[in-house]
Amino acid sequence: MEALDYHAEERRKAEFDLEEMKIVWAGSRQNYEISDRMARLVASDPVFRKDNRTMLSRKDLFKDTLRKAAHAWKRIIELRLSEEEAHMLRSYVDQPAFTDLHWGMFIPAIKGQGTEEQHEKWLPMAYKMQIIGCYAQTELGHGSNVQGLETTATFDPQTDEFVIHSPTLTSSKWWPGGLGKVSTHAVVYARLITGAQDHGVHGFIVQLRSLDDHSPLPGITVGDIGMKFGSGAYNSMDNGLLRFDHVRIPRNQMLMRVSQVTREGKFVQSDVPRQLVYGTMVYVRQTIVSDASCALARAVCIATRYSAVRRQFGSQNGGPETQVIDYKTQQSRLFPLLASAYAFRFVGEWLKWLYADVTQRLQANDFSTLPEAHACTAGLKSMTTSVTADAIEECRKLCGGHGYLSNSGLPELFAVYIPTCTYEGDNVVLLLQVARFLMKTVSQLGSGKKPVGTTAYMGRAEHLMQCRCEVERAEDWLKPSVILEAFEARAFRMSIACAKNLSKFSNPEDGFSELSPDLLEAAIAHCQLIVVSKYIEKLQQDIPGKGVKRQLEILCNVYALHLLHKHLGDFVTTSCITPKQGALANEQLRLLYSQVRPNAITLVDAFNYTDHYLGSVLGCYNGNVYQRLYEEAWKDPLNDTVVPDGYLEYVRPILKQQIRTARL
Amino acid sequence: MEALDYHAEERRKAEFDLEEMKIVWAGSRQNYEISDRMARLVASDPVFRKDNRTMLSRKDLFKDTLRKAAHAWKRIIELRLSEEEAHMLRSYVDQPAFTDLHWGMFIPAIKGQGTEEQHEKWLPMAYKMQIIGCYAQTELGHGSNVQGLETTATFDPQTDEFVIHSPTLTSSKWWPGGLGKVSTHAVVYARLITGAQDHGVHGFIVQLRSLDDHSPLPGITVGDIGMKFGSGAYNSMDNGLLRFDHVRIPRNQMLMRVSQVTREGKFVQSDVPRQLVYGTMVYVRQTIVSDASCALARAVCIATRYSAVRRQFGSQNGGPETQVIDYKTQQSRLFPLLASAYAFRFVGEWLKWLYADVTQRLQANDFSTLPEAHACTAGLKSMTTSVTADAIEECRKLCGGHGYLSNSGLPELFAVYIPTCTYEGDNVVLLLQVARFLMKTVSQLGSGKKPVGTTAYMGRAEHLMQCRCEVERAEDWLKPSVILEAFEARAFRMSIACAKNLSKFSNPEDGFSELSPDLLEAAIAHCQLIVVSKYIEKLQQDIPGKGVKRQLEILCNVYALHLLHKHLGDFVTTSCITPKQGALANEQLRLLYSQVRPNAITLVDAFNYTDHYLGSVLGCYNGNVYQRLYEEAWKDPLNDTVVPDGYLEYVRPILKQQIRTARL
Repeated sequence: MEALDYHAEERRKAEFDLEEMKIVWAGSRQNYEISDRMARLVASDPVFRKDNRTMLSRKDLFKDTLRKAAHAWKRIIELRLSEEEAHMLRSYVDQPAFTDLHWGMFIPAIKGQGTEEQHEKWLPMAYKMQIIGCYAQTELGHGSNVQGLETTATFDPQTDEFVIHSPTLTSSKWWPGGLGKVSTHAVVYARLITGAQDHGVHGFIVQLRSLDDHSPLPGITVGDIGMKFGSGAYNSMDNGLLRFDHVRIPRNQMLMRVSQVTREGKFVQSDVPRQLVYGTMVYVRQTIVSDASCALARAVCIATRYSAVRRQFGSQNGGPETQVIDYKTQQSRLFPLLASAYAFRFVGEWLKWLYADVTQRLQANDFSTLPEAHACTAGLKSMTTSVTADAIEECRKLCGGHGYLSNSGLPELFAVYIPTCTYEGDNVVLLLQVARFLMKTVSQLGSGKKPVGTTAYMGRAEHLMQCRCEVERAEDWLKPSVILEAFEARAFRMSIACAKNLSKFSNPEDGFSELSPDLLEAAIAHCQLIVVSKYIEKLQQDIPGKGVKRQLEILCNVYALHLLHKHLGDFVTTSCITPKQGALANEQLRLLYSQVRPNAITLVDAFNYTDHYLGSVLGCYNGNVYQRLYEEAWKDPLNDTVVPDGYLEYVRPILKQQIRTARL
Repeated sequence: MEALDYHAEERRKAEFDLEEMKIVWAGSRQNYEISDRMARLVASDPVFRKDNRTMLSRKDLFKDTLRKAAHAWKRIIELRLSEEEAHMLRSYVDQPAFTDLHWGMFIPAIKGQGTEEQHEKWLPMAYKMQIIGCYAQTELGHGSNVQGLETTATFDPQTDEFVIHSPTLTSSKWWPGGLGKVSTHAVVYARLITGAQDHGVHGFIVQLRSLDDHSPLPGITVGDIGMKFGSGAYNSMDNGLLRFDHVRIPRNQMLMRVSQVTREGKFVQSDVPRQLVYGTMVYVRQTIVSDASCALARAVCIATRYSAVRRQFGSQNGGPETQVIDYKTQQSRLFPLLASAYAFRFVGEWLKWLYADVTQRLQANDFSTLPEAHACTAGLKSMTTSVTADAIEECRKLCGGHGYLSNSGLPELFAVYIPTCTYEGDNVVLLLQVARFLMKTVSQLGSGKKPVGTTAYMGRAEHLMQCRCEVERAEDWLKPSVILEAFEARAFRMSIACAKNLSKFSNPEDGFSELSPDLLEAAIAHCQLIVVSKYIEKLQQDIPGKGVKRQLEILCNVYALHLLHKHLGDFVTTSCITPKQGALANEQLRLLYSQVRPNAITLVDAFNYTDHYLGSVLGCYNGNVYQRLYEEAWKDPLNDTVVPDGYLEYVRPILKQQIRTARL
């Protein structure tokens, strides 16, 4: 039984070197090794078991999460894990917890916005977890518009303190993870008020709970905001609410790297460039793109493996039915998502490079590439997370009825993933920022200012307005240059069309608002171009391993051509391609699906996910799906007894025709 | 406080007669009155409370469901409700329960497939609920392909019995609602075997549990299949698994209306036309379309009301921020869904008529319209449920971060709705059936056989291949004839293109399978045409009430033009419209959004949903959203104590640096 592998035959079909592909996916051999080690560490530890998670009540789930977080921290200390290893270990635990915010938001906020002195005071405690922090920005009535936050921090020169206060119901802090039940401290964003002047929103370190008995400090009302989507998912997190009733903190707990308040209550801007904030945003959003490829890969892995197990229709002479992965309808939905996982992986890798590049430039006081880098990461965050959220649900549908079971892993993956579309910048708001940047770039084209980075193609305006796609046969669509030009021309022409329509409005802001749906589409076209072009760049690198590059080329073409088909209206109405060329692309796409087919299982094996991490009966490595579904079913609490609780009170009286006199 | 209504001003803006619109939505004054009465009955009864549902454990949720089902039955008897009223009452209880299957599948199966004698024996017991039944068709390994079911029913002529048996693991019945814990009986689908002959799949009435103590009868293994998507949703239902170990039932428990087995074991087909089965399918799918419009309307109602409460950005001189419903990006996502709700409502109404028409014809032995009616309902079931599932999630996103809270009502609405896309015919499989019918219709065009019903437009082949859209200005797109012709031409040309490509294959089945993704698109185009044309027909009726017809016209145009924009590639590549005309449609669409805007709140009020049924803090009638969010939060079990359970064991040791020695 050890060697049982229902996918063995599928795995033999692969035309490439799996081990090399695993390294490509991980980014490097070193990444691969760390990741592999951490994944196995978590998978083999019974404390991290999660197969019973969706059956736990909210309280039990939360307690289970506290236990896992403590155990993870213990292991991190015992094994002296590096920061990177610790981060990876936590991510393989795969259960949102207060620690995500402590490490991912609280510490970075202090590092980014605090002074040296503040670093020295707070960071050692935070690194040792002597204090646990969260990031309290969003309010009940205020999300995307950070400048509209209502919480106030009023300087009291008499006591050298800030008075933190929640003046309205809508100013209640709402959503911060880790706030509801665990954090001892928070970075709180509030309007800074000195004298009668409002200096806008700044960050303050505020202690929330006693370090002795964990009770909330005077003037602080704090609690959990309640159940969220799904049965497990983010319900392991204590997203919280927080109200201040004139809570006093020392002046030196305002994060003062960029602005200061002096002992006398004078507001001073430091000479640290405010653009630094954008650098942090580039960092955070880059990690979100990388996480998107992980989540997408996970869903695709489950759907692909199950599609090879599941058979339906097509039995001939009493033989087995057809594997659903062999149906073109299944392929045309599944393989573009598989290709997207790889595409997002590579653009995420490139964003890592971009962040390093931006950081280096910032240190040299070069801010020239920052707006472009900022727009580009905002757009890619939006685009990849929206696609991933939809794709997880599509993968669930691709698993048919059984995808609806919690133990398929897909419902929880969906529920836990979707907030990504609204946090760290709402996806629609972000795309509008990209559109604004594109319109600005277009307006400067005549000025001699050369567009940089991912907008460099706009510098070839004349060519892109005139070029004609030269595809005559389906296989012409395999040329990277042909694909690239079509995507560039489409993105550029859509931006130009928007700019033209905008110019008809006397008030540009009215125009921007009126045309915003079109502007969103132009921004998406631009973002898709970035992903396509970065994938093509990746293929120009040296990629070792038998057949590896070939597979990646096929997937790149699938990615580009499925987008072309999906957005055919864009390409054709802008005359970038003809309807005939669109049909040829579609024809080529079908041929590509046949080339992906024999490699599909191995392409998802390359993600190197453990069965523990996948958490899916349908996606388990050996494909023993039906046996496991059957075994798992019996674990449901409803199966604890043969006759269900409630039978005597509520079912029997119906059957015995005694309902009118029954006590219900 | 009684009169508090944050939407009062919005409601004053309405340009039409709300009461008349409510009647239009309900279909008739009588429907409206029954629906209104039942909704209030449920909303005012504390037993039907559901605001704590997502916090219950599986067992408690299930028990709560049994209680509600019993109480509903009690009320139905006490109030002597009609079948229609009873059905409506159950649907307003809004919690899936075993009764859905008893009334919706078990009884109809016996009625449709049983003989007179069987009706007399079983139906009285079922109507009184002396027995509770379910519908056991789907198996662990077999869903869409009903003919591939593995359960066997072997006739034993010695004892005049059938032996029901589950020969393999994959033959286990899997998914039937009400099976896991409640049903005493089931209609079981199994392969009928007499002698050594397999006669395919037939239905059998099988008792599962003792009517004395509810324990499973000998040879029967039965249980619940486990947790499903969401925290409440379908977890109130005991979807079950069932295995038979040579279970014997009397011969007369085979449902014998269409086929019989004689005492001697001879298999006989009756003269009842097998097409009757299709009549039942038309009925069931028609109700699904009608339910789709309800679910969609519910999501749209929540998102619309909240979009008028929520404000973000755009504050001028310290005034209030802009209502998000005023943003064109919000309108362009929300209003097409509002229009779709009305469109699906009307096509559902028409399907009711179609079912009545088909039934009448069947009684007169006229089967001529049946294939077309069957294809049409299959397609509309698929299209409306897919759109609704996606739309619920889109509405959740339109509510921003707060949409992720369970008490927004949208997560549960999504989780409970999505199985509709796979049950009663998988949506992709159904669309392929439509495509097959379209290809057949096209192939017969030359033969003189006139296409009927919703395919009648194909009879004007020549015109539809040649016609050119005559739109020159944006407002030309308001003409119903222009819209209709564009949709007809597009659907027809897509079908013709598929037929042409199919003809290149020597084996038509290979071609159908290879081109299936294109065929799906042609089927969708056809289904969208049906909805558009039925909406236009509806507008040709006499519709009383000030401004009502005008609003419905606006929504009809929104529905059609948003589809045109979304599928622009289809319309342009088939040369049905020019790119310029596409841009004009888009322009007109924006103008229409401005016309919907002042009526939006009242258009969703017309659905007449109670706050109880909506189950949404964000969508509550009076718009007092923030106050209610705040109050609801404190009800979460995590807020029972200030310091959470688990603090001493798992948080304090971290803070106190004692994790290495802590017992976890």
